[in-house]
Amino acid sequence: MKSGEFTLINRLTKDIKTDKSVIIGVGDDAAVLEFNKKEYLLLTCDMLIEDVHFLRKTSPQDIGQKAVCCSVSDIAAMGGEPKWMVVSAGIPKNIKTAYIDGIYSGIKKAAAKFNVNITGGDTVSSDKIVIDISMAGVVKKNNLTLRSGAKLGDAIFVTGALGNSYKTGKHLKFTPRIKEAQALVNNFKINSMMDISDGLSGDLWHILERSKLGAVVYEKYLPKSKSATLDAALSEGEDFELLFTVSKRQARRIIEKFPLLCKTPITCIGEIIKSGFGFVLIDKNKKPLQIKPKGYDHFA
Amino acid sequence: MKSGEFTLINRLTKDIKTDKSVIIGVGDDAAVLEFNKKEYLLLTCDMLIEDVHFLRKTSPQDIGQKAVCCSVSDIAAMGGEPKWMVVSAGIPKNIKTAYIDGIYSGIKKAAAKFNVNITGGDTVSSDKIVIDISMAGVVKKNNLTLRSGAKLGDAIFVTGALGNSYKTGKHLKFTPRIKEAQALVNNFKINSMMDISDGLSGDLWHILERSKLGAVVYEKYLPKSKSATLDAALSEGEDFELLFTVSKRQARRIIEKFPLLCKTPITCIGEIIKSGFGFVLIDKNKKPLQIKPKGYDHFA
Repeated sequence: MKSGEFTLINRLTKDIKTDKSVIIGVGDDAAVLEFNKKEYLLLTCDMLIEDVHFLRKTSPQDIGQKAVCCSVSDIAAMGGEPKWMVVSAGIPKNIKTAYIDGIYSGIKKAAAKFNVNITGGDTVSSDKIVIDISMAGVVKKNNLTLRSGAKLGDAIFVTGALGNSYKTGKHLKFTPRIKEAQALVNNFKINSMMDISDGLSGDLWHILERSKLGAVVYEKYLPKSKSATLDAALSEGEDFELLFTVSKRQARRIIEKFPLLCKTPITCIGEIIKSGFGFVLIDKNKKPLQIKPKGYDHFA
Repeated sequence: MKSGEFTLINRLTKDIKTDKSVIIGVGDDAAVLEFNKKEYLLLTCDMLIEDVHFLRKTSPQDIGQKAVCCSVSDIAAMGGEPKWMVVSAGIPKNIKTAYIDGIYSGIKKAAAKFNVNITGGDTVSSDKIVIDISMAGVVKKNNLTLRSGAKLGDAIFVTGALGNSYKTGKHLKFTPRIKEAQALVNNFKINSMMDISDGLSGDLWHILERSKLGAVVYEKYLPKSKSATLDAALSEGEDFELLFTVSKRQARRIIEKFPLLCKTPITCIGEIIKSGFGFVLIDKNKKPLQIKPKGYDHFA
């Protein structure tokens, strides 16, 4: 689930009561629901629409794969593993069959890659192509990582590099960080985690707001993608990297041991501080900048 | 999940392998998945798109309610009860906030009415309004009713009346038959069940194909809605009534006892026969007509 649109989601869910089967409802990467003794069920959805998220000239395989990967990324960020999905598709009547087959082939390929069972769907006619994937996964109760779990003094980490996702095509071809997330939750104590879909400047705010804390991040440590500006690395969105916080002790263990588990680079970019400070960026001239939540907002 | 679009869904799911956690994948009203010792998890999705399923002048509350009720109807038809849902919404930038609030208020009202927890969602910008609801429910293993369970000699029943759903506005304001379905599965042995979303002529075929049997249906018994033609009652779609089959012995018990449990009329419309006969309608002149699958097909 995206978070940039939190005002609209909040509007939908204002005054909503949920029963005790809902451990975490709206406000994290996926809902956390009662499942069995050892595991929770995770539920998330992500919608892609033609001319908003992709163009008709976009490779249909890429569209299909991305539709799956957005939801896999959500499940990964909760510390879980994807299990089942259903696909709703809005399909224009005049579209070439080969194009739809291409989307479906991308969906199937990504589902197979991440061990997700395709279990059903709905297909309706539509002017524009619409692909909405709902995915259910499971997470061991001990492995559940929420946005709300950051602790004062935590080290802040990101995987991979940030920025220029649109320019490089990474926004279509990214690999959701499920392997990295599993390595993290199975080997270390992760206090909070989410995926960066709307840009670090907006998404770190979600951790800060839900954990009621502040953060200081150092530009000099920020892993920018090749030729990405600071602004692109902070705000562009669709990087689908993991953002997580751990105690200093765990941070030392992770820096030492994580590279033995996964090749993906991880970088400590800052520290969790008291809430009154908000989100402070120390730029390369050592000047502190106050970062307001912005990110990519579809309704800005 | 709709079934009229089975060729497209089939295309998506051709050659798909699922693991043993998937009891029933594509091809029924909802997927049936491993959950706990006594229950299965059910998963379904239904997408509504502006100018296909509703117009901008449609009451937004009705749109929201219908979006929820389609999925509740799917869960009901499996013998289960809805539990959790996520909402993906495509929202035009120029739309009035009150309209969106209206849709959301319809969603919330229906979710509360049918005890479904709203647990999250995704909101994206879009030219046309798109509402896609994915719903998870649970069903006691003993209560699971599939399309594939019809037996030779079964009596065929429908709830309510069929036809003219568009003319009367029932397609927007229907009440999913969850109470009726629960009364049926908790008190009788139901061999097969589904909801009629694409019209009896198409939907009964799904039971026949999956159960590898035929059917004879009598026009004189068909509960047509007021002033509905035979064709409307057979093929119009969006009635959201239950279609189910039971042994003759259970049929007698149902006719006697169901009216004590629910006020909704139920009608025995025919009988399950050998597969070679297909779907035979005996019209009011006692003439047998061969009914081919047609129903409302969004891609016809």
